[in-house]
Amino acid sequence: MSKTNRGNFFEDFSVGQVIRHATPRTVTVGDVSLYSALYGTRFAVQSADSFAQAIGYPRAPVDDLLVFHVVFGKTVPDISLNAVANLGYAGGRFLAPVYPGDTLTAVSEVIGLRENSNGQSGVVYVRSVGFNQDGTEVLDYVRWVMVRKADTSRPAPETVVPKLPAALAPDALGGAVPLLDIEGWRNDLAGSEARFADYQVGERIDHVDGMTVEEAEHMIATRLYQNTAKVHFNQFTEGQGRFGRRLIYGGHVISIARALSFNGLANVFHVAAINGGRHVAPLFAGLTVHAWTEVLDAQPLPGREDVGALRLRTIATKDRLTGDFPAKVATETGEDYDPSVILDLDYWALIPR
Amino acid sequence: MSKTNRGNFFEDFSVGQVIRHATPRTVTVGDVSLYSALYGTRFAVQSADSFAQAIGYPRAPVDDLLVFHVVFGKTVPDISLNAVANLGYAGGRFLAPVYPGDTLTAVSEVIGLRENSNGQSGVVYVRSVGFNQDGTEVLDYVRWVMVRKADTSRPAPETVVPKLPAALAPDALGGAVPLLDIEGWRNDLAGSEARFADYQVGERIDHVDGMTVEEAEHMIATRLYQNTAKVHFNQFTEGQGRFGRRLIYGGHVISIARALSFNGLANVFHVAAINGGRHVAPLFAGLTVHAWTEVLDAQPLPGREDVGALRLRTIATKDRLTGDFPAKVATETGEDYDPSVILDLDYWALIPR
Amino acid sequence: MSKTNRGNFFEDFSVGQVIRHATPRTVTVGDVSLYSALYGTRFAVQSADSFAQAIGYPRAPVDDLLVFHVVFGKTVPDISLNAVANLGYAGGRFLAPVYPGDTLTAVSEVIGLRENSNGQSGVVYVRSVGFNQDGTEVLDYVRWVMVRKADTSRPAPETVVPKLPAALAPDALGGAVPLLDIEGWRNDLAGSEARFADYQVGERIDHVDGMTVEEAEHMIATRLYQNTAKVHFNQFTEGQGRFGRRLIYGGHVISIARALSFNGLANVFHVAAINGGRHVAPLFAGLTVHAWTEVLDAQPLPGREDVGALRLRTIATKDRLTGDFPAKVATETGEDYDPSVILDLDYWALIPR
Repeated sequence: MSKTNRGNFFEDFSVGQVIRHATPRTVTVGDVSLYSALYGTRFAVQSADSFAQAIGYPRAPVDDLLVFHVVFGKTVPDISLNAVANLGYAGGRFLAPVYPGDTLTAVSEVIGLRENSNGQSGVVYVRSVGFNQDGTEVLDYVRWVMVRKADTSRPAPETVVPKLPAALAPDALGGAVPLLDIEGWRNDLAGSEARFADYQVGERIDHVDGMTVEEAEHMIATRLYQNTAKVHFNQFTEGQGRFGRRLIYGGHVISIARALSFNGLANVFHVAAINGGRHVAPLFAGLTVHAWTEVLDAQPLPGREDVGALRLRTIATKDRLTGDFPAKVATETGEDYDPSVILDLDYWALIPR
Repeated sequence: MSKTNRGNFFEDFSVGQVIRHATPRTVTVGDVSLYSALYGTRFAVQSADSFAQAIGYPRAPVDDLLVFHVVFGKTVPDISLNAVANLGYAGGRFLAPVYPGDTLTAVSEVIGLRENSNGQSGVVYVRSVGFNQDGTEVLDYVRWVMVRKADTSRPAPETVVPKLPAALAPDALGGAVPLLDIEGWRNDLAGSEARFADYQVGERIDHVDGMTVEEAEHMIATRLYQNTAKVHFNQFTEGQGRFGRRLIYGGHVISIARALSFNGLANVFHVAAINGGRHVAPLFAGLTVHAWTEVLDAQPLPGREDVGALRLRTIATKDRLTGDFPAKVATETGEDYDPSVILDLDYWALIPR
Repeated sequence: MSKTNRGNFFEDFSVGQVIRHATPRTVTVGDVSLYSALYGTRFAVQSADSFAQAIGYPRAPVDDLLVFHVVFGKTVPDISLNAVANLGYAGGRFLAPVYPGDTLTAVSEVIGLRENSNGQSGVVYVRSVGFNQDGTEVLDYVRWVMVRKADTSRPAPETVVPKLPAALAPDALGGAVPLLDIEGWRNDLAGSEARFADYQVGERIDHVDGMTVEEAEHMIATRLYQNTAKVHFNQFTEGQGRFGRRLIYGGHVISIARALSFNGLANVFHVAAINGGRHVAPLFAGLTVHAWTEVLDAQPLPGREDVGALRLRTIATKDRLTGDFPAKVATETGEDYDPSVILDLDYWALIPR
């Protein structure tokens, strides 16, 4: 019996395979404090029991992205330990609120496989679901990741590429938010006068502030999520690798960008869905993240008068201010991301009406 | 509607103006743990429920300076985002105990304005008050800060400089400490035999130990307090700035000095008032903080037999041992701080009689 | 009255002396989160209330090594502030479970003294006991440490060297683990199929993963434990010292090695005893820790069908992969540790049968 987990290789996966991931995790106010200290997040609903209770929550819910990172972390030892690259996310939905004291577990199903033409690796598509201790689904999302083959002589599996939505429909949003008593929402405490109706499709918001990342910070964060991907932690081996440095977990960048976005989106209190996300370029310690957001869409939620949904595209950069430049620039062969761009995230978020 | 907070400039303030600050914050045992891990504080009352209960607290109260930093942090986006310098504190009082689970909010009133003769900036005096979820005042203090003007053509406001006390009177102290059953106080567990009567006015105590500060640490601390001042977090812009480095939040230095002061002041369990404080010089990561304390005064509290008050002056230095040198040295023009001094803090603290 | 603790010197100790250490400490879910974030530990019993409850715990217990570090930290100001070196541990037993909310205190008894022939220092043997708020013993262990003399003219005390067991007997194990309902243990959630019977004496397990340590991390950890040994925190003085750097607390290495050992020992959920431990060489920030474990013994616990005990020897290295090399290498004069080895730890751990 091999006792050490070497992780799965591309040929170890099959479509329809279901993997229950290890290490359930009780999320506590300790995790909430660390999350706050790592990102400086200031959204009032997650920051204060009193604010959350005034609008109908039993207490402050756990930040959506902390939930995402914990669920994601569980999948790493089984899905992406031998990954070459994390290629993308789609169809991510936050389905039920998570409160301190809840315990999260995760299950993934392989929903697609496509071997690369070089026979060295392939793309694995998984739908991962996070559950709380009652078996309630709190989150699901699809990600696809390029995974190495260990045995390149193994024949390619039948190619199955799942149909993935470009964006979730508004009626799929809001499961993690109880019906709110918006009379109790105080703009002054939340930090902004801007409500749902104040955001215009096409509007671009520069989040102004920046955050420099240190090695200790991203490692503390990534371990908090029990994410074990070696590239984040081992300077001895990474120093001899592709970049000569530890890579920062892409989710750390997402959380930094979300925290920076408070300056401009203070009332946008809930990430309801992740339509898609791309880690355009790696981030390393010592670099500074800035971010801007473009409003892609604004939709009411069917049957709800309390909150509306903004579809947002947040772009994060490294070592470049985000005042006014496009995410993509013309190149000889078409267009590509500006070299400073590290994250292109498309998500739905909720805001009081 | 501008959605991004650019902060207030000098000309945006008026005397009598009241600002309710954003982002209420529930302080939890998670915050207490982080505070402990960032400073290594060892005062028994805040460290152990059992010790606190033995003397009459319902449980261990939150460290006074953690309360201060959280309240201070809330004021930053409205008061000091465009600050040139944080000039001083006065009249700070801890008014009610804060326990894990309490939610803090803050309100500031502008109580003074004085434009600088160059017309580029001015000094803003604010009294900030921290409240818990019941509306009880837990802390108030005055600070004054030099803030830039955005529009230098705007005329100077009438100069109003508030009268500030050099020190609080003993009868203003102790609101945050219930009447204690000092029979339950155990010196061995607290770490010192020295009680109120053992400290002499004029006595100087070298705290011996030192603490080197890392970038990750001061940023984690400052974000924990939801303090958003850009100078602490952004190496990309600060690298091009005055110091070429991120500045460490002055409150971080205060907490380090307080934690170091355990060695010599172990029974001095509560900061009751901040009479005045000056961040004499900036601190940067990689430097080491040492501290000493001089006893300025010792007073009973009117009507209380349980505790007495020591007025203390704590001096913190960077990269210099504090065995025996004066805070101020003679110069050609009079006297000035020794170049190693970074903090000069005058406060009242309580100790069992 | 000297108010500053200069620590005890060798001549200050006497056999039979009992020292009650300062600063009781309530361990909370905040501490648990920080511990998790500092080491990335993934053992399911400590990670999730639901997993712990399914096998009969009232809730997830606090990690054994966090308990050890907190108790150890309390002893530092009295025992090892003037230590030249921490020489070893023996006879460490975890006697009762610790849960969030429990308050830990510590008492040490001097059980041996041996002055070095140079008259400059001597070895102090202490048995330290950790208690919870009810006075229940949760941990005891012996350590010996070389301590400087302040007054080298003082005569040597009578030499007393305690008899210490090479290893604890199996019937001394398990006090910190209630009788478990192993039917409720789920291998998939715990992360491994390997139970007690699957481990063979003599088996060696390479834990594969590595962890690079940053200054901020080990200082945050060591302060969390209220361990005040100067060498860990003060670059200003250590920069002029023996190594020119801050030394990392040896317990930090133990916790890293234990967390890495999840990969191969996922079901080994409880450290029941520390038979012996040696910090073979110092670790400094920037270096990467790897670890392997050898199974020294496997024993049932008298009267218990739920769990068995594995005696394990875990070796941690710095900047060297642990795939396949011996801990000790032949030298001209016999054999010595490989220069990469930093920790040699011999302990009993429990695993479901």
